[in-house]
Amino acid sequence: MVNTLAILAPGLLGGSVAQAARARGAAQRIVIWARRPEVRLALAEQPWCDAVADTPEAAVADADLVVLAPPVTRIAELVERIAPHLAASATLTDVGSVKAEICRHGTTTLAASATGATFIGSHPMAGGALTGWQNGDPELFAGRTCFVTPHDAPDEARLTALVRFWRDLGSEVVTVAPDQHDEIVAHISHLPQVVATSLGNVLGSKPANWSHLAGNGLRDTTRIAASDATMWIDILQQNRDEILRALSACEDELHHFKAALANRDWTDLRARLERGKTWRDSLS
Amino acid sequence: MVNTLAILAPGLLGGSVAQAARARGAAQRIVIWARRPEVRLALAEQPWCDAVADTPEAAVADADLVVLAPPVTRIAELVERIAPHLAASATLTDVGSVKAEICRHGTTTLAASATGATFIGSHPMAGGALTGWQNGDPELFAGRTCFVTPHDAPDEARLTALVRFWRDLGSEVVTVAPDQHDEIVAHISHLPQVVATSLGNVLGSKPANWSHLAGNGLRDTTRIAASDATMWIDILQQNRDEILRALSACEDELHHFKAALANRDWTDLRARLERGKTWRDSLS
Repeated sequence: MVNTLAILAPGLLGGSVAQAARARGAAQRIVIWARRPEVRLALAEQPWCDAVADTPEAAVADADLVVLAPPVTRIAELVERIAPHLAASATLTDVGSVKAEICRHGTTTLAASATGATFIGSHPMAGGALTGWQNGDPELFAGRTCFVTPHDAPDEARLTALVRFWRDLGSEVVTVAPDQHDEIVAHISHLPQVVATSLGNVLGSKPANWSHLAGNGLRDTTRIAASDATMWIDILQQNRDEILRALSACEDELHHFKAALANRDWTDLRARLERGKTWRDSLS
Repeated sequence: MVNTLAILAPGLLGGSVAQAARARGAAQRIVIWARRPEVRLALAEQPWCDAVADTPEAAVADADLVVLAPPVTRIAELVERIAPHLAASATLTDVGSVKAEICRHGTTTLAASATGATFIGSHPMAGGALTGWQNGDPELFAGRTCFVTPHDAPDEARLTALVRFWRDLGSEVVTVAPDQHDEIVAHISHLPQVVATSLGNVLGSKPANWSHLAGNGLRDTTRIAASDATMWIDILQQNRDEILRALSACEDELHHFKAALANRDWTDLRARLERGKTWRDSLS
């Protein structure tokens, strides 16, 4: 169990971390900082918030575990601001969905501040259509994958404690290097998003009534095209190189499918349909 | 109401037509022919089957409406076989998911046989993971789109009667020319299938444990990759040209997305994400 858990700039994920930690007894004391004063006032009234801090520096002073929960583009500045104020025993983590840059910067910054605190990134694969800490859910992480991404080789006990924390919240934890994390999510999360968005743009250029004739196939295949654009711009910026590589692989695949269809190569097309089916069947 | 409805070679769709017609009182008498004798024996025991015929010719003799329900590749031969045996008042339709070739062939064949019968294609956009008449469902068509695709200008009363039949079964009927039908379904149904299959092939070429880390986004986006390969080979063969055109549009879209990402053109990327979201939001 964590003694003091500090959560900075909670949105849906940060609020859910607080609620899950309280519901599952994963932290003794929960301290939260939010940028806007009116949010701090509202947070102070939540049963899963023991104390509200007026500054990030004050929030982290006694914390064993600090969870940074702002949008990915704001993580670096927050790390730099709190780094000199961390306890020697503190582990600093985040919940951003891209990891290489954040983990490199976090590790370097904490090493330079020489407090003894350690940075280890996290990425809980959870979320939904709703945003904001008000929509937090103590069961958000239950049964979901959470990546823990140590850069270099951090202290083994701290890594174990962070893994235990996410497990206590109900996650299935996978430990991988930050670079490999970014390659994996480029394929399993970011590529599907780009494909769904592009399919949506093709259909959106056709008469509107066409789409309304569609069955569930089109609806399922494009559901995530409805995701928030601002969040995805952040992800595209942070994981550009890996997404470009995954997109190239997808373009190759589509190109080969189209060439086989143009050449009436039914044997090749059947093999592609069957490989796709075998893979998808294995997912259920 | 149809007096005598004949259904030839029922699978999931044909069996569901019989059950829906009985449940909703859309036909007075239902006659069915199936190729295999043991299937005919089983059909004879169903409450939604009034008579089983030993041959397709016998099944259609007194029918006002004949529904051909075999795989698309078998429709043409069945049309040729029964054409001389249709009643003058008969309307012949099918439930195939591609229409231009079938409707051209059906119209020409019936005109040549000079019985007075009329061919008008149908495509009920219904189905699911299950196949076979045993899985038929009287509510399969409820609230679903059914295309009715007249080639040339058929007798207005017969077209109206066919539209009414599908409405009686619960469908929302859309009447379009066969060529336009094929262009529409290439985009709203066939393109998503090729994209889901190709995404499945990209993921299938990566370590198997990657996919198991994925959230619901990947699962939804690729759900239809699990569809039956044989059915899709038939569709790819029948609608090759339109699918090639839709695939080119999708390739262009992906290419532009990738170029914008390579060039860090965040304004363009945001516009694409937002257009995709606007389109998808309009679908719900």
